[in-house]
Formats: sequence, structure tokens, C-alpha cells
Amino acid sequence: MGLDPEIENIPSFLLKKKDPVFEFNRRIIDATHTYAVAYKPNVAFYESLGVKGWVSLEATVNYIKEKYPEIFVIADAKRGDIGNTSKKYAETFFRKLSCDAVTVTPYMGSDSVLPFLGYPGKWVIVLALTSNQGADDFQMLSMPNHEKLFETILRKSSRWGNPDNMMYVVGATRASMLLKVREIVPDHFLLIPGIGAQGGDLAEVIQYGANRQCGLLVNSSRAILFADSTERFAIAAREKALEVQGLMAPGI
Amino acid sequence: MGLDPEIENIPSFLLKKKDPVFEFNRRIIDATHTYAVAYKPNVAFYESLGVKGWVSLEATVNYIKEKYPEIFVIADAKRGDIGNTSKKYAETFFRKLSCDAVTVTPYMGSDSVLPFLGYPGKWVIVLALTSNQGADDFQMLSMPNHEKLFETILRKSSRWGNPDNMMYVVGATRASMLLKVREIVPDHFLLIPGIGAQGGDLAEVIQYGANRQCGLLVNSSRAILFADSTERFAIAAREKALEVQGLMAPGI
Repeated sequence: MGLDPEIENIPSFLLKKKDPVFEFNRRIIDATHTYAVAYKPNVAFYESLGVKGWVSLEATVNYIKEKYPEIFVIADAKRGDIGNTSKKYAETFFRKLSCDAVTVTPYMGSDSVLPFLGYPGKWVIVLALTSNQGADDFQMLSMPNHEKLFETILRKSSRWGNPDNMMYVVGATRASMLLKVREIVPDHFLLIPGIGAQGGDLAEVIQYGANRQCGLLVNSSRAILFADSTERFAIAAREKALEVQGLMAPGI
Repeated sequence: MGLDPEIENIPSFLLKKKDPVFEFNRRIIDATHTYAVAYKPNVAFYESLGVKGWVSLEATVNYIKEKYPEIFVIADAKRGDIGNTSKKYAETFFRKLSCDAVTVTPYMGSDSVLPFLGYPGKWVIVLALTSNQGADDFQMLSMPNHEKLFETILRKSSRWGNPDNMMYVVGATRASMLLKVREIVPDHFLLIPGIGAQGGDLAEVIQYGANRQCGLLVNSSRAILFADSTERFAIAAREKALEVQGLMAPGI
């Protein structure tokens, strides 16, 4: 479940609180934790609030890890830089914040990803094929061996780690591509955004993307978070989370 | 000039201050501003210190923009995500912080870059060919038309903006590739990291990369910042900055 608290969509009665973003998240987490295996804060939504946003992000991650330590926390940060800088980003999300996983962009190659793999029990989630239109610009380019660029990236990057410390982002809006993804990485977990607001089809994702252990983390953000904008928002989020979880259950 | 204040390299007498990172930066900026056209804080080095790091980053950018408003500030952040998220990252660096430019990774395509282009007078700096070894993994891959992936990215992304709102990162460690870069983007500014600690050759960068207006922003970070680790560090940084600036002057 995504935690992307757009300040303009937070119920107005919370805006009087000292940390409205955390107060919103806390109520959402308490209402939905039974139906979520992972929370995924999208770091941009915190960063854009400056220092206050980082206070909210730290408070949110700490709250989950203290109260619901069995729930996995993914920093959706899309980071990646030269080795000494990626090392700092890994420290940010694995040490300073106690996230379990972080999303990483592969464009800068192996030394931009490897520093995230040095933390036992932590995971790196590499962008393979994303859910947006722009994925066609480069990720879907044909290579000389007739595979697509995202397939080359899957093939090469899967050698840097293993299915116990690496996952891939594959957008639900490209469900038919999941067959190709599963040929290359049959055993890796896939993080699937794009269900709901972005239009991805859950049944297709399960049909083409599931492996014997399921192997899917399907994300939903806005549909649950902003199911209702009144004081009832947390109850509405719980109902929506239950509904989404119900849709996923038959596929497992 | 890069502002990458590794806390372990900050002179120890500053560590007693309330905000050692800002105190370090402030002294470095005051000592070097005559020789710098731009400062480039690497966001990872701040983020890895958590909330305190964002306080230091905000203080540093504000200090430059208030005291030396003619100096350009580049957030080296390597961001990029789907449209609604890139919009938040653009708000982070252009509105919440008053940076002039931000580095962006192109892997997610046009809608990950376009939201940064909606700010008049601001710049997006797209990663083309980076200075690290991992650049060989994907950026240097041959495409079916025999150009390299980074050339395809230059060609396509250069249509999203223009030389007045877009620049490219091209690593100094790949100086000979600058000829190919200049065939595709003759008029764009290039941000060139990799001089100094990473081993890039400045004379080659100028030979292959300069255009009629110069068109180069050559970065140096560690060689200047950590020229000396005693109370003399700011004077040493100034001397080193003067030396680096002197090496660049004949090429202009």
C-alpha cells in the first residue's frame, strides 16, 4: 500500500495538527495494517514539504517498525548515482530510516546498485518496466538481439544480486510484458504499481506475473488513501483496502 | 563546485557547532565564491543525515541565494519518476528549495522529465553519459542503428526542452565521447563531473566538449572541499579553487 500523502488531499480537520502528514498516515496505517503486507511511502511527497516532510517520513517509518514490525517498508525513492553517492543513499534508507527496501533506477549501471546490496536482510528494487507512458521512450526500445532494453536490464542486473535481496518494478499497465519478465527472472519478487488510478488490470497481472510462491507485491495508493475526504477517511480506507485485498486473494 | 560535505571529512573543530555541515559549507562558499559560477550540493550527502541533513541543505541553498544571488545552484539529486511524482520533486528543488537546476535520470522517459521543465528560468540536467564504470552496462550499449543508448537518449530528450532550459551530464572520464555528444546537442550546456578524484582530463574535456560559447560547467568537489583538514581548510579550498579555475580559463 502506497503512502503518498498529498497535502491537498488530507482531510481538513487534520491540518490543524502539528504534523498533519504523520497524523494522516498513522490513522491510515492503524486502519489498514491487517490487509497490507507492505507500506510504500513515495519519498517525493515528503521531500516536497522540505524539512517538515522529512520529519513526517521518519515518524511514519518509525511508527510502522515499532507498532507493526512484521510489515515490510519500501522507500519509493528511485535513487541511483556513482558508488560513493549510492552508498550514502543506502545509508539514508537502511540506516537513518529503517526501511526494508528501496527502489533504485538502473541507468548508471552496476556500481549505482551494488552499494544497496551490502545490507543483510534488506532489498533493492530495480526499475525494469514502469507503468507510465514514458516507459515507451527508452525501456521498450529494441536492442540488436531483438529483446527490449528492459529485458537487457533484467538479464544483466539479475546477476548483481539474487532473489533474496533484489526485486523488480514492473508496471501493471504492461501486464502482457510480465510473460517476458518471468522468462528472465522467474524467482524474483515483482513490485507492481499502476493498479487503480493508472488503469492496470489485476487479473492480468496475476495471470502473467505470479510464480509458484506468488512473487508479487501489488501496490495501491490513491484509491485507498483518498477513498473519503471526511472524518470517516480511515474507515473508508479500511473498507477499500479490504476490497483490494479480496481481489488479490484468489490469485494466491 | 560540488558541495558534498562528508561528515567524516569535516574538520573536527566544526563538529561542536550546532550545524557542522552548514558551518563547513558557509566557510567554503565565502572562500571560493569568486572562482565558482555554480555550486552543486549532492543531495545524498545531506539526506543520509536525516532531518538534520535537510536543515543543512536548506540553510546552504538559502545562504548562497541570499549572499551570492548571481551564483547558479544545482541540486545533484538524480531524480525521476512518473508525472505526478516528478512534479513533486520539481516542487522540492525549485519551490521549497530555490535551486536553479536539478539533475534528472531519463530512464522513465518524457513524463518523468517534463514536469521539471515547467519553471521559467530553471533548468533540468539530464543524465546522458556518466563518469562511473557502470556507465558501460547500459549507457554504452549499441542500438540497432549502431549508435549508443546515451546517443539515443540525447537525441530524443533534446526535443523535450531546448538549450535554454536543458543541460546534460557527460562524465569527464569519457572525454572522447564528447565529440559524439556535440554532434547531437551542439548548443546545450554540459555538466561535466569526474575531474579530479575520478581521473578525468580537463584539457581533453575542453578540446572535445567546448562549443563557441564554451558550453561547459566542469565540476570539482572533493579536491577543493577537502584540500586541507585543519582550521586552514577554507584557505586551502580557496587556493585549490583558484588553481582549478586557472586550468579552465585558457579553454574559454
